[in-house]
Amino acid sequence: MQDVSSLVARAREGAPRAVARLISLVEGAAPELRRLMAELAPLAGHAYVVGLTGAPGVGKSTSTSALVSAYRKAGRRVAVLAVDPSSPFSGGALLGDRIRMSEHALDSGVYIRSMATRGHLGGLAWAAPQAIRVLDAAGWDVILVETVGVGQSEVEIASQADTSVLLLAPGMGDGIQAAKAGILEIGDVYVVNKADRDGVDAAVRELNHMLGLGEAREPGDWRPPVVKTVAARAEGVDELVAAVDKHRAWMEERGELRRRRLDRAAREVETIAVTALRERMADLRGNTRLEALAERVVTGGLDPYTAADELVRGVTGS
Amino acid sequence: MQDVSSLVARAREGAPRAVARLISLVEGAAPELRRLMAELAPLAGHAYVVGLTGAPGVGKSTSTSALVSAYRKAGRRVAVLAVDPSSPFSGGALLGDRIRMSEHALDSGVYIRSMATRGHLGGLAWAAPQAIRVLDAAGWDVILVETVGVGQSEVEIASQADTSVLLLAPGMGDGIQAAKAGILEIGDVYVVNKADRDGVDAAVRELNHMLGLGEAREPGDWRPPVVKTVAARAEGVDELVAAVDKHRAWMEERGELRRRRLDRAAREVETIAVTALRERMADLRGNTRLEALAERVVTGGLDPYTAADELVRGVTGS
Repeated sequence: MQDVSSLVARAREGAPRAVARLISLVEGAAPELRRLMAELAPLAGHAYVVGLTGAPGVGKSTSTSALVSAYRKAGRRVAVLAVDPSSPFSGGALLGDRIRMSEHALDSGVYIRSMATRGHLGGLAWAAPQAIRVLDAAGWDVILVETVGVGQSEVEIASQADTSVLLLAPGMGDGIQAAKAGILEIGDVYVVNKADRDGVDAAVRELNHMLGLGEAREPGDWRPPVVKTVAARAEGVDELVAAVDKHRAWMEERGELRRRRLDRAAREVETIAVTALRERMADLRGNTRLEALAERVVTGGLDPYTAADELVRGVTGS
Repeated sequence: MQDVSSLVARAREGAPRAVARLISLVEGAAPELRRLMAELAPLAGHAYVVGLTGAPGVGKSTSTSALVSAYRKAGRRVAVLAVDPSSPFSGGALLGDRIRMSEHALDSGVYIRSMATRGHLGGLAWAAPQAIRVLDAAGWDVILVETVGVGQSEVEIASQADTSVLLLAPGMGDGIQAAKAGILEIGDVYVVNKADRDGVDAAVRELNHMLGLGEAREPGDWRPPVVKTVAARAEGVDELVAAVDKHRAWMEERGELRRRRLDRAAREVETIAVTALRERMADLRGNTRLEALAERVVTGGLDPYTAADELVRGVTGS
């Protein structure tokens, strides 16, 4: 195993393979991870994290690619982290990488990486912030975090972002689907992609209507804009970048950016702590062993709360 | 607040309103929950839990309703628990209830209930097993747990079931979508619904092919069957019930049913314990307070692992 410090140094010089190795340490929950995070701590905090979520078929990959081009035009170095929280087939993610890489393959100001989090005890909430910290400390200006899949995992990814962009497309019953998936409230900026299709105005209307259904806003509160794009032709993408920048400016002005980052760090710390406590629980022996408690719950001799009390006593001694 | 013991007694006599009240106690994480679970512990363990998952549009509600009818024909009392892990609009779930209730409204051998778990600290993994225990202890023979949404929440619901049924429909690029959502491996029984549509044979072929991609099976291992249904016309539903019964018989014979229930109880106990520990973390004061630690992580003075160590020390004293 290569020395962590030299990997960090090379990652900060822009070496993509060093960045890739570091993210693999995160993915693999390598023992070096503690030391890596300790080294990165003073280096991070400069990148801006944009989350991209949306159901399959809305043109997420195309939008990511168009957004990368727009940021590059503005001279910003962009890293893309594509998180697939549930795929059992890492080959799929790799294929996606190759397809998306092609357009930006020769640009050293772009870094694209898929990450699988399946099987991690702490899951996405555990791995994503650490991968983001790697990219941040390595000096990337903008980190686009794109997630595959819908529902809970999207909400988790959105919570990792400074600005969360939610993509929809007309004619997919989007409003209803988004509401069902519980993701309507996570967007700071909404995009109706494939805006050259029929039904785009209806989709924007429906979306604006649903966004208006939330609580009444205070003056000065952020009103999420709805941007129309045709990502495949790069139409509307500059407007999308402008909307993200406007949200960033609003957040900085209101102290909201700092608040979000504090929240994010709190959740990250809590997730690592909970993961550690769960590992302790798995290591218990005797009467407070989880398997022994489960046995008594299944046979009806113990209720799950009393069992949980005993488990907690096992790790805390109180 | 009504006395828990008398609610339990009335629920066991078949009073739907008593069952509804008890599930509301679970949803609301009421203080009586501990006592309720202690009372239910010796009463549960008799119901058979069937999980129903699938992407929106595959005909999940129709399939549930058809399955209820089939079980009723066989003389079994059926409870349906529709879990929507992420919807911000409980009204949606209630509407779905009313639509589905209509067909079985006059049948006292059917109980249908939606449950929202949004906002719970422990989420779906915390609430679903307790609601299942309520229905189980109340004497329902079969509990159909249907989930709205895809991805992680489906995997969680499937893990609550004795037999997990995964629904697909032709012409939705199902194999690929299912693989992306990581749900292909959770099914004990697969259903291709809307089997009167074009492409059903291709969908079954693709599904069988993907199922064959898993690890090589030992002789005697369960080979998930693929059942074709047209739920709207009740076609193939008896075959689906037969496939579920066959899986149940296989599980009982191999000791697998007991193993699954032990796993489920272990996860339930662990989730309650972790939730309790997270509550303790939130109650910490001073230097080990989560907010204070997050502050130091954001400013780069502390890495998240060292912060998590301090948090763990705060709750365990070691």
